[in-house]
Amino acid sequence: LFKNISIIGLGLIGGSLGQRIITKLPGTKVTGIPRRKATIKQALAKKAIQKGTLDIKEGIKNADLIIIATPIQSIVPIFKKVISHAKKDTVIIDVGSTKTALVHNLEALCPSHLHFIGCHPMAGKETKGIEVAEHKILDKATVVLTKTGNTSKKALNALTLLFSKLGTKPLTMKPQLHDYLVGAVSHLPYLLASSLAGTVKDMKNHKKTLSQLASSGFRDTTRVASSDPDWGKDIVETNREQLLLVLEQYQKNLENLQKMIKKRNYAGVKKVFTQNKLFRDSLY
Amino acid sequence: LFKNISIIGLGLIGGSLGQRIITKLPGTKVTGIPRRKATIKQALAKKAIQKGTLDIKEGIKNADLIIIATPIQSIVPIFKKVISHAKKDTVIIDVGSTKTALVHNLEALCPSHLHFIGCHPMAGKETKGIEVAEHKILDKATVVLTKTGNTSKKALNALTLLFSKLGTKPLTMKPQLHDYLVGAVSHLPYLLASSLAGTVKDMKNHKKTLSQLASSGFRDTTRVASSDPDWGKDIVETNREQLLLVLEQYQKNLENLQKMIKKRNYAGVKKVFTQNKLFRDSLY
Repeated sequence: LFKNISIIGLGLIGGSLGQRIITKLPGTKVTGIPRRKATIKQALAKKAIQKGTLDIKEGIKNADLIIIATPIQSIVPIFKKVISHAKKDTVIIDVGSTKTALVHNLEALCPSHLHFIGCHPMAGKETKGIEVAEHKILDKATVVLTKTGNTSKKALNALTLLFSKLGTKPLTMKPQLHDYLVGAVSHLPYLLASSLAGTVKDMKNHKKTLSQLASSGFRDTTRVASSDPDWGKDIVETNREQLLLVLEQYQKNLENLQKMIKKRNYAGVKKVFTQNKLFRDSLY
Repeated sequence: LFKNISIIGLGLIGGSLGQRIITKLPGTKVTGIPRRKATIKQALAKKAIQKGTLDIKEGIKNADLIIIATPIQSIVPIFKKVISHAKKDTVIIDVGSTKTALVHNLEALCPSHLHFIGCHPMAGKETKGIEVAEHKILDKATVVLTKTGNTSKKALNALTLLFSKLGTKPLTMKPQLHDYLVGAVSHLPYLLASSLAGTVKDMKNHKKTLSQLASSGFRDTTRVASSDPDWGKDIVETNREQLLLVLEQYQKNLENLQKMIKKRNYAGVKKVFTQNKLFRDSLY
C-alpha cells in the first residue's frame, strides 16, 4: 500500500483524511501542503499531518499518493503543477463534489506515467476549515471512486484497499452516474434548503417572531443552507446539467402536491406523504 | 395556578406535557385520558400522569385546566364532549399545529362559563406516541397562545404563568399570524422534505447506490418527511390558504435560482446563497 501520502489543501476534508490515515495506518507518512503557514501548525497539533510545507514541489517529491483536497475551482491549476513534479507511478486523486467535467479534464491532462482517479468522500459538515476537521466524519462514509475507460486497474485496486483500511466504504461508479445521483441527494437538498431559508428571510417584518417559532424541523431542513456559498457556486457551475434535471423532477413533484391541495384532494396528499415517508424510512 | 390538570390524548405532545408538569410542578395533579387502556399503563410508568381513565366525563370532573392533545381532526368532537361536563371557569386549550379555523370553531362552541385558548407548543419529533414522549423536548420551547377579541385576559395570564413555570417560552399572537409564520417554518419544510424524498424515490433503479450516497445532508433535509402522514394531511387541510401562499413564495425563490443557473449567472447564484446562509446563521 501507499507509504507516503501528500495532501494538498487542509480544510475539513483534507484535514480529516490526514487525521484518519495517521489514526488507522500508523506506518504511513502524511505530508500536508496548505495555502497558509498557520494551517501547518494547526494541522500538526491535530495530528492531521506529520510534516507540512507551503511548497507543492517539495511536499510531493516522495509521494506515492497525492490527494488534492482544495475547492473545485483550484483543482485543475494545482493538478498541472503536481503532474510536472510527481515521481513515476504516483496515484493522484481529487476529492471534489462533482466529477464528470473534472475527471474528463484531469484525465486529458494526466501523463501516462501517472495515474489519476476521481474521488468523492460522502462526508461533510456545514462548516469548513482545519478547525473543524475530525477523522470521525469519515467513519463508515461512502467514498466514491470514478471509473472510466482510462482508469488504471492497479491504482483503483490500491485505492479500494486504502479506503477499506480507513474504515470507509469505497464505491466505484462512472462520473456521470455520480453527478446525477449526488445531484439528487446532495446538491438538490442544498438548493432547496437555501431557497427555504430565503423564503423565510423575505418575511423580514416578523424576524423576531420567526426565530422564536423556528424549531428543530426548520433547523434541520435548512442546515445545509449554512454551507460555504463558494462550494454551492462550484457545484452549481460544475454539475449544471444534472442539477437542472433533478431540480425539474423535484418541481414536478412539488407542483403535483400543490395541485392536489388546491383541489382539496386530501386523500391524494396523504397517499403521497405516506409513500415518501416509507421510502425515506427505508433508507435509514 | 392550576391544581388539577387533565390531558386528553397521550401521544408525543400530551405525554411530554404531562411528564413536564409532574417534573416541574410537583403540587399539581395530572389525570390522563387516552383512547386505549394500554396507554394508561405506559403513561403511569413514564410519570406522564398520576391517574388515568378512558372516560372523558370522569377524567375532567375536577379539572381546572383541560388540555386537548389529540390529532387535529378529533379536537372539535372532543371539545363538544368536554364543554358539557367541565366545571365552571375551567380553562380549555388544544395543542393543534394549525390555529385559525380551529380557534374560530372552538370559540363559537365555547359557553361563557368556560374559557378556551388555542395553544401550540413548538416541539416535536418525526415519531409519535407515548413511547417517545419525553418532557425535555419542551425545554425552552416556544409555546404559542392565541389571542382574539374573545380571549379571557385572566385565563391568558394564568396560562402564560403556567408555561413560564414549565420552562417553556409562552408567546401570544393572533391565530392568523401563527398560521402564516408556522406555515413557513414548519408546514412548508414538511412539504419540501416530502417532495425531495419523493424525487429520490422515483430514481428507483438506483435505490441501493442512492442509499450509499445519501449522507448527513440528505438525512437532515428530509428528516421531517418521516413525520406521521395523518399530521401532514391535517396541516395541509386546516392551513390550506397560508400554506399555498408561502409555497408560492418559495417556488418563486427556487425558480429565480433555476433561471440564474440556466443563464450561467454564477455570481448571482453565489449572492443568493450567501444572503440565505447569513440569514439562516443569524437564527441559530
